[in-house]
Amino acid sequence: MIGQTRKLKSVPLQNVHFEQGFWADRQLTNREKTIPAIYNKLESTGRLAAFDLDPNQTPPKHHSVIRKFYDSDSGKWLEAVGYSLRTHPDPALEQQADDLIDRMARAQQPDGYLNSYFPVMEKEYRWRNLRDWHEMYNAGHLIEGAVAYHEATGKSKVVDILSRFADHIDSLFGPDEGKKRGYPGHPELELALVKLYRATNEPRYLNLATYFINERGQQPHYFDIEAHNRGEDPEDFWAQTYHYCQAHEPLREQTKATGHAVRACYLYAGLADVALESGDQSLVETARRLWDDLTEHQMYIIGSLGPARSNEGFTFDYDLPNETAYAETCAAISLVFFAQRMFQLDQNARYIDIMERALYNGVLSGVAYDGTHFFYANPLAAYPKVNPHDPWSAVKSDPHYRREEWFPCPCCPPNLARLVASIGSYFYSVAGDTIYVNLYDSNRSDIDLNGHRIQLTQQTNYPWDETIQITVNVDQPAAFTLALRIPGWCRDARLQVNGQDVALNSASGYARISREWASGDQVSLTLAMPVERMVSHPKVRQNAGQIALQRGPVVYCLEEVDNGTDLANVSLPRGSALATKFDPELFGGVSVITGTANRYVPRAWKGGLYQPETVTLVDSPSFTFKAIPYCFWANRAPGEMRVWIRED
Amino acid sequence: MIGQTRKLKSVPLQNVHFEQGFWADRQLTNREKTIPAIYNKLESTGRLAAFDLDPNQTPPKHHSVIRKFYDSDSGKWLEAVGYSLRTHPDPALEQQADDLIDRMARAQQPDGYLNSYFPVMEKEYRWRNLRDWHEMYNAGHLIEGAVAYHEATGKSKVVDILSRFADHIDSLFGPDEGKKRGYPGHPELELALVKLYRATNEPRYLNLATYFINERGQQPHYFDIEAHNRGEDPEDFWAQTYHYCQAHEPLREQTKATGHAVRACYLYAGLADVALESGDQSLVETARRLWDDLTEHQMYIIGSLGPARSNEGFTFDYDLPNETAYAETCAAISLVFFAQRMFQLDQNARYIDIMERALYNGVLSGVAYDGTHFFYANPLAAYPKVNPHDPWSAVKSDPHYRREEWFPCPCCPPNLARLVASIGSYFYSVAGDTIYVNLYDSNRSDIDLNGHRIQLTQQTNYPWDETIQITVNVDQPAAFTLALRIPGWCRDARLQVNGQDVALNSASGYARISREWASGDQVSLTLAMPVERMVSHPKVRQNAGQIALQRGPVVYCLEEVDNGTDLANVSLPRGSALATKFDPELFGGVSVITGTANRYVPRAWKGGLYQPETVTLVDSPSFTFKAIPYCFWANRAPGEMRVWIRED
Repeated sequence: MIGQTRKLKSVPLQNVHFEQGFWADRQLTNREKTIPAIYNKLESTGRLAAFDLDPNQTPPKHHSVIRKFYDSDSGKWLEAVGYSLRTHPDPALEQQADDLIDRMARAQQPDGYLNSYFPVMEKEYRWRNLRDWHEMYNAGHLIEGAVAYHEATGKSKVVDILSRFADHIDSLFGPDEGKKRGYPGHPELELALVKLYRATNEPRYLNLATYFINERGQQPHYFDIEAHNRGEDPEDFWAQTYHYCQAHEPLREQTKATGHAVRACYLYAGLADVALESGDQSLVETARRLWDDLTEHQMYIIGSLGPARSNEGFTFDYDLPNETAYAETCAAISLVFFAQRMFQLDQNARYIDIMERALYNGVLSGVAYDGTHFFYANPLAAYPKVNPHDPWSAVKSDPHYRREEWFPCPCCPPNLARLVASIGSYFYSVAGDTIYVNLYDSNRSDIDLNGHRIQLTQQTNYPWDETIQITVNVDQPAAFTLALRIPGWCRDARLQVNGQDVALNSASGYARISREWASGDQVSLTLAMPVERMVSHPKVRQNAGQIALQRGPVVYCLEEVDNGTDLANVSLPRGSALATKFDPELFGGVSVITGTANRYVPRAWKGGLYQPETVTLVDSPSFTFKAIPYCFWANRAPGEMRVWIRED
Repeated sequence: MIGQTRKLKSVPLQNVHFEQGFWADRQLTNREKTIPAIYNKLESTGRLAAFDLDPNQTPPKHHSVIRKFYDSDSGKWLEAVGYSLRTHPDPALEQQADDLIDRMARAQQPDGYLNSYFPVMEKEYRWRNLRDWHEMYNAGHLIEGAVAYHEATGKSKVVDILSRFADHIDSLFGPDEGKKRGYPGHPELELALVKLYRATNEPRYLNLATYFINERGQQPHYFDIEAHNRGEDPEDFWAQTYHYCQAHEPLREQTKATGHAVRACYLYAGLADVALESGDQSLVETARRLWDDLTEHQMYIIGSLGPARSNEGFTFDYDLPNETAYAETCAAISLVFFAQRMFQLDQNARYIDIMERALYNGVLSGVAYDGTHFFYANPLAAYPKVNPHDPWSAVKSDPHYRREEWFPCPCCPPNLARLVASIGSYFYSVAGDTIYVNLYDSNRSDIDLNGHRIQLTQQTNYPWDETIQITVNVDQPAAFTLALRIPGWCRDARLQVNGQDVALNSASGYARISREWASGDQVSLTLAMPVERMVSHPKVRQNAGQIALQRGPVVYCLEEVDNGTDLANVSLPRGSALATKFDPELFGGVSVITGTANRYVPRAWKGGLYQPETVTLVDSPSFTFKAIPYCFWANRAPGEMRVWIRED
């Protein structure tokens, strides 16, 4: 099975063209607003200048902990630029990237080490704290940026720089005699090394990634040794447990997703990459086991992860608080990456179902409609003065949790930029004679299938409309299988080829149409999108008695601006009618949901906080509620928001 | 009006005798278990030895911040001992207290300064950080202990020591030329100085308390000046705002209870004391305003305060989360103190209603039935791995939030001990020819009313029974008014004198019976105690759609040990019958509530976290639930707990 998966190839980014539709809009904003805004912040906060390594420069007012992961932000921006250039050349942007690369070149130490912090600020502390200090994490993001930029431009300079850095790391860490048995405290380098291996064909990079995966959590524990070497007690770890960084036991023994959510999914994605390359069945099983745990016990309905601020991550099964949900934007993004690898391993649509859930909800909520403001934490209910980011929020003067231009730790904005810029690469894959169509949106794609040039054109207003028209064009009639993902959320899918109904014949979540295709062949897929009242697993205590509205892959919410205040007192009568309406004016066109809701309004509350129910006269006026897609909340007048709504 | 209030006197502790009943049980446990257990901890943690001021002693493994308020624990223990000795002489206990006092005497500095930390550990930092360092707070608790012990034993040594300390403080701080305009960052000294004034008749102590109340929050701000003097930026205050310590503006301008809940109520109690002594109407109004804000916008149904762990205190109006409720035991206790002063100001039963709510719920939940384990935080819902004390609780191995023997900051255990030991002093007050009966429990009290010796004997199984029999004995027939509190929770009270119905004629919450009383006169008060389904103010979003069970002053909860797991899925049918049963075996005898509840049990959940409601088959088996008094939760098998229960 794994032998086959190595043959699976994503249709590359530059071959998938969005001209209008949902992702075309997102990418336009990303190119015109987000990528430039991030560049300006990299510059104004000193992240670019940090590579100039002037020991006399006064760093901006950032704590050294923050400064230690500056480079990751630059790396992610470079990666976003690489993806964007592949579909939309932009010489000025390319010049900015080249300038950054020049700075990196000058900053690189003679031995290949590259980091904008340590050589200047704490020269003697290089590689002394892999547990906390992000050097490998930074390296990973720089490598990802380098590979993306190289693939976009063909320029090799940045890959050469990062290869030298990877060589340096490889010379220091590994299982060989004389090397340290270290690995990243903040995983990310693993998946980056696999990318670098694929870009360069240098097997040492894959070997190093494999070593990191194998060594993690082994005894004697490297983070213990390292702490002792620093004269510290390993027990005094601020995060309290190596579960935080998924290093509490060897990966093959891990059964639960634990700790920091973003680290977890980056690690699991890297693990799956190594599994894919090696065919190591024990790693494949580990990846599946962790995926299942994560998505069946610890995932928000918006496809995001990590309820807790304390560890920016997981707590325990079914613990999914709404107002205080941390649900970091990067965590939803990292889940997309993990899902992509799981699909590559197993070619099962259930992974894409989760990817799609994350994309349309917990990922895109991270960026404002304007493209220049961002959420770090993505609560599923908002109430003035409650900020999952900040336990002191209630004492602050600004009562509303709003998107911000930047953060002390700005990991999320460039992460959004690189994912939106690369979304096309998630749409199609080919393996053998099968083309997998995983995501839906209007686009034209040019696909190379065993030497055949095949063009698929999707026409749809997905995710707002139920119907997707796919036109096939081929250089010459060709026999192949078109595997159309039937989303898990869809309970009534219909398929036609050239106007004729086709039995769905779905396996692993794909409707497979095997035939000889000719140019002009038309496939019509209709995915019924009634509004669903979703309920949570009965162990999710926070959602007891409540439902969430979902239509297609899109989760909805109520906002105060549409529905008034005190949303906790709004309830939906069970089974009442729900209507969908496309509003072309709202956020460039989205579907909204309306229906009748009740409002709990006690009459003549006599004051005080508590009174007997028997003396409480209650009105329950009904009103027409309006729900909007969750990912667009907090783009209008600030106020309350709720995803989970009480049901009568 | 204020002129009159100065004439109000509490019937002193030693005149109120509990022999059996609710408080007799609590006091027995307090004397035999709690007070000795706390002494052992004071000793084993080095708090007593800290007074020996040996610069070479190795302090126990406590952070210096913790060490800085050691003395407050010793002071509260001494106070508890003083109260206990007044009703239950105990030479061995008295000897322990005398030994502590000897230590304090030796530790006192020549200038009167007394603190077990600074003279040894940071001599030069004395009085340099009133905002954070608790010297005045410690002084207050030592003074309260001294006064209580002096009143119990007649021994003056400890009052002399603390008077010298108070004189020292008075010599340094105040409005006079050459003194610093400081005041306590952690209020408490204010009310203690009023006690010391009443015990010694030294007006300087009242003047100093009055100065503290007047100066607080004035500009230029003393805490700013102090920070500058330490070379610090006042903006870098860890608590972010002077709201934390109620010093953000002058007290007379404050309209909201803010910040650290215990500091707030200690301060407001001291403010009310100064108002009571001075008759200053602007202070009386401030006290009333803050009381109303606190109890009408920011109080849990258990009579506790402060939802947030971050500031151990208030957030914003109607923000009352249940699982994460901090609701510190000390906060409920401090509310009792504030309520007592408000009653002294206004003689309105509504203050005692709140006092009673706190006593039977949020105060007593702080101590285990065994008397030797304590809660610091008192959540209103418990779920394994959720600990309002500790944001890392979910990663710990012990999943349940349980009472502990001690805490790094053990303010709550001795606070409970002193309150339980002194509960008799809250029962009766006299003013003019009126005897106020504020609390109910079997007891015999000897009351001096303008020279008349009056004995009231209550016989009742309150708070479990509705009926209170009061027998009057007088040295000779005497005309006076018996003012019986009709609790705010009671909607059907009946009163008889010598078997004859008497109209309630209630004003300010008191049924007043004015007559000539003779020995053997019988008063029978029946306070109907149906089980009430309580609802919250509609702005309390956390309790939307939920009710709490209350009977008399006692709030109930469901525990897993009685009702199974997943209590979020339990709901009570609206209007269903609820029964009360006295269980003599449970916790020495308590009333429990039973009735029919429904359990939400989805059938054939197909896996995963979310599914459409329409495909979810649900069983709703009914079962007989059992609710126990909230204050006794977590004394049996650990598990879930809920006060607020969903209603169908």
